[in-house]
Amino acid sequence: MKTMPISKAFTLIEPGPVVLITTNDGEKNNIMTISWTMVMDFSPRFAITTGYWNYSYNALRNSKECVIAIPTVDLIDQVVGVGTCSGADTDKLEKFGLTPLKAKQVAAPLIKECLANIECKVIDIVEKHNIIVLEGVEAYFDKFREEKRTIHAIGDGTFIVDGDKLDRREMMRSKLPEGV
Amino acid sequence: MKTMPISKAFTLIEPGPVVLITTNDGEKNNIMTISWTMVMDFSPRFAITTGYWNYSYNALRNSKECVIAIPTVDLIDQVVGVGTCSGADTDKLEKFGLTPLKAKQVAAPLIKECLANIECKVIDIVEKHNIIVLEGVEAYFDKFREEKRTIHAIGDGTFIVDGDKLDRREMMRSKLPEGV
Repeated sequence: MKTMPISKAFTLIEPGPVVLITTNDGEKNNIMTISWTMVMDFSPRFAITTGYWNYSYNALRNSKECVIAIPTVDLIDQVVGVGTCSGADTDKLEKFGLTPLKAKQVAAPLIKECLANIECKVIDIVEKHNIIVLEGVEAYFDKFREEKRTIHAIGDGTFIVDGDKLDRREMMRSKLPEGV
Repeated sequence: MKTMPISKAFTLIEPGPVVLITTNDGEKNNIMTISWTMVMDFSPRFAITTGYWNYSYNALRNSKECVIAIPTVDLIDQVVGVGTCSGADTDKLEKFGLTPLKAKQVAAPLIKECLANIECKVIDIVEKHNIIVLEGVEAYFDKFREEKRTIHAIGDGTFIVDGDKLDRREMMRSKLPEGV
C-alpha cells in the first residue's frame, strides 16, 4: 500500500452529503454550502465546522438558528455556485433561483427546491475547533420529488452521486434505536 | 413539503463514508465501525463522535492514537459485522479476516484490505460533546485495488454505494487550496 500526501487525506473522509445552510441575521436571509458536517450519535444533534471566514458565521452566532437544506444532484450547479460567492455582496437565494419558505421554529428559511430541510438551534460553539453544535427541531422531506440522489463532496472540486442502496437492517437490528 | 420525525433527521446527514477505526491498547489491536465523522476545514484534522459506550474509547483516550481505515463496498458485511460486536469479548480483526499491517507513527494497525488508511493522533477530546479531534499524520491509498466505491451509512441499517462522479473543478477553482 502506497502513501499519499497527508494534505489530501481529507478527501477520503469528506464524502458526506453536501448541504446548504440558511441563516437570517434579522434583516436578510443568507445561504452557504458546507460539507463539513457530522452526525452525533443516533440523535438530531449535528456538528458543523465553520468560522469567521464565512459571512454566515455572524448570523449563526447571533441568531443561534439555521436551516440545513439537503440538495440533490440536479441542483449541483446551484450548490457549487452558492459555495463560491459571498452573502456579503450577493443575494444568493435570488441569484441561484432558490425559493425561501417560512420555517416553523426559526427565522432562517427552508429551501423549497431541496429534498429535505432541518430547522436547527445552535446549542454550543466550540470556539477552539470552530465546531458549531446544532440541535434539529423540525425536519421536512419532499417525498414527491423525483430526483432523490444526494451528492457527496470529495473536497477537490469533484462530487460523488448516490448509487445503489444496500440493505443490512437484519444484521444491524441489535444496534438500531427503536423506530429507525 | 411534509414534515418527518425529528428522530430520523440524522439519516439525512449521515451519508459520509463508513470507516473502520483501529486502536491498540498496549496489549492488543481492536477495530470499530463508525460513520459519525467530520472533516475540519481543508486540513488533515478530523472529528469523530464516540464515547465510553464503545470498547475502543479507552484505547483511544489512553494511547491518543488510532488509524482510520476506509473500506469499500465489497467489505460491507465485515464492516457491519465489526459494528455489531464488541472488542471486549471478540478478536474482531481475526473474526472478520482483516489483516493488520504495521503503521509508521502509531501503534494501531493499518488494515490491508481497505482502500485507504490514515494514521492519526488524538489532539483533543471535547468531553461535553463526545467529540474526539484527530490529526492525520500519514495516509495510504491502494490505487491498485479494483473496487474503489465506498459506502455511506444512512443510519437505519441501509447503505448507499458511491455512484457517478461529477467534475466541478473549474467552477470551484477559487476555493480550492493549492495542490488539491
